[in-house]
Amino acid sequence: MKIRPLYDRVVVRRNEEEQTTAGGIVLPGSAKEKPNQGEVLAVGDGKLLENGELRPVGVKVGDNVIFGQYSGNSVKLDGEEVIILNESEIFGVVEG
Amino acid sequence: MKIRPLYDRVVVRRNEEEQTTAGGIVLPGSAKEKPNQGEVLAVGDGKLLENGELRPVGVKVGDNVIFGQYSGNSVKLDGEEVIILNESEIFGVVEG
Amino acid sequence: MKIRPLYDRVVVRRNEEEQTTAGGIVLPGSAKEKPNQGEVLAVGDGKLLENGELRPVGVKVGDNVIFGQYSGNSVKLDGEEVIILNESEIFGVVEG
Amino acid sequence: MKIRPLYDRVVVRRNEEEQTTAGGIVLPGSAKEKPNQGEVLAVGDGKLLENGELRPVGVKVGDNVIFGQYSGNSVKLDGEEVIILNESEIFGVVEG
Amino acid sequence: MKIRPLYDRVVVRRNEEEQTTAGGIVLPGSAKEKPNQGEVLAVGDGKLLENGELRPVGVKVGDNVIFGQYSGNSVKLDGEEVIILNESEIFGVVEG
Amino acid sequence: MKIRPLYDRVVVRRNEEEQTTAGGIVLPGSAKEKPNQGEVLAVGDGKLLENGELRPVGVKVGDNVIFGQYSGNSVKLDGEEVIILNESEIFGVVEG
Amino acid sequence: MKIRPLYDRVVVRRNEEEQTTAGGIVLPGSAKEKPNQGEVLAVGDGKLLENGELRPVGVKVGDNVIFGQYSGNSVKLDGEEVIILNESEIFGVVEG
Repeated sequence: MKIRPLYDRVVVRRNEEEQTTAGGIVLPGSAKEKPNQGEVLAVGDGKLLENGELRPVGVKVGDNVIFGQYSGNSVKLDGEEVIILNESEIFGVVEG
Repeated sequence: MKIRPLYDRVVVRRNEEEQTTAGGIVLPGSAKEKPNQGEVLAVGDGKLLENGELRPVGVKVGDNVIFGQYSGNSVKLDGEEVIILNESEIFGVVEG
Repeated sequence: MKIRPLYDRVVVRRNEEEQTTAGGIVLPGSAKEKPNQGEVLAVGDGKLLENGELRPVGVKVGDNVIFGQYSGNSVKLDGEEVIILNESEIFGVVEG
Repeated sequence: MKIRPLYDRVVVRRNEEEQTTAGGIVLPGSAKEKPNQGEVLAVGDGKLLENGELRPVGVKVGDNVIFGQYSGNSVKLDGEEVIILNESEIFGVVEG
Repeated sequence: MKIRPLYDRVVVRRNEEEQTTAGGIVLPGSAKEKPNQGEVLAVGDGKLLENGELRPVGVKVGDNVIFGQYSGNSVKLDGEEVIILNESEIFGVVEG
Repeated sequence: MKIRPLYDRVVVRRNEEEQTTAGGIVLPGSAKEKPNQGEVLAVGDGKLLENGELRPVGVKVGDNVIFGQYSGNSVKLDGEEVIILNESEIFGVVEG
Repeated sequence: MKIRPLYDRVVVRRNEEEQTTAGGIVLPGSAKEKPNQGEVLAVGDGKLLENGELRPVGVKVGDNVIFGQYSGNSVKLDGEEVIILNESEIFGVVEG
């Protein structure tokens, strides 16, 4: 059982361990919310442009992405919790 | 008696049992509202683009879709309750 | 005496009996407002697009439409109350 | 002394008697505000579209229009009170 | 010393006497704010359209315009107070 | 050390003396905020239009501009305070 | 480990010392928030335009940029804190 996100939505599995790792993501005082990391499990067909065309999203399955702690909607399927984000809620991709 | 939704609206029958099934959808603490699942019963002719054309919606009759608990408007026809959503309120399609 | 609605506005006569009929429309707990039904009496020339053209509305005179209880503006002409809605306030058309 | 409205603005003289006539406009309980009627005295050159062109307004001098009670700005010229509305604030034209 | 307004801004000298003249502008009870009159002293080069072109404003120097009492920003130059309005804040031009 | 503003931003040095000069800018009672004057020190490459092109800003280095007292962000470089405004926050250019 | 920002996002390392340097940035009384400086570490592929094309961002790696104190989201990677900004949150580039 899996989710096929629509348009520019992205399904992500949150890295639960990130909050305790020394090299992980930490929220400094001035930031609005704690960023989280996760792995992209599925991406939609693309953002719907005003001319009716779809533009592919900028992340792909397997990418390790950063997003806000309160972004998206959590869904549990077959016992596993995933998050459905809009691509615009993703700050960037962690590489290296 | 049935409803023909306009434009990018979608008629959905909510899966009432989802809230008690082990493999169903559960709301973790950080999510804004409890997602619900349901079966698509009817779709509109498409989203009205700025150039006046219609773009077909991204779900079809029979799809099992996920949407927010408080999205849409509930309507009862011939004793059956259905929900009329905007396509943009649908997070994704459950497959498999 | 009748009303010619402008652009994508629609004149509707609310079905007063709907609220007591067994097969009528009932508002479940999670919906935002009670949907109402009514018959389309007149439609405008169409929605004004950004390029200045008009796009005909998606309902026609005689359609039985569903809309939110608090949508539109009620007007009484020759003793009959009607509602003037924007087409975008119409959820769908009841058929069959 | 008269007013030339700009763009899609419309000058209207409110029908003061409408509120007491049997066949006039009455506000049912669910409407947001009491619609008023009035005669169009002047119309602007048209709505300014995004491409810089003007699109003529959909009402003409002499039309009997319906609008919300609190819409527009009232102005008194030579002792007569008139209302300056945006065309989008006009619900429709009363005919017959 | 004078002001050259940018784009669709308009410099207006308010008619101070308007508030006491019998044929002047009076605010009826339902209006949102008291309209004022004034003479156009300068106009900008035009409204910036989305395609980057300028569209000349719809009023010219010397026009007697009506605008909301609280619209624009007042500026005093060489001892004279003037108001800088956006063209969209002007209801219309008084003629005759 | 100087600032190169991005897009339609403008760097301005506020005329500190303006608030005490007889011919300067004074705020009448109805205005929302006290306008200030200043000299343009640098302008960005232009406003980013929806088609991706840049449109040059409407002021140039050396212009004496009027803007709202609370507009923009103040920055001090090499001991001199300057203000970074969006061009849209500039009311007009003082000439003569 | 580094972050590849999406679209018109920019990764910046804040200059911590700026707040105590004589020639640094100081917040005068009327500004809304204290501007900060930092070095651009990475830029996205460009802003997504409405036609689906990307427009390169206006800053490049190594630029010393000014931005609002509370803009963006702070992220710590390999022990170093960085900020992910939208290009539109950058006021300008400090040169010289």
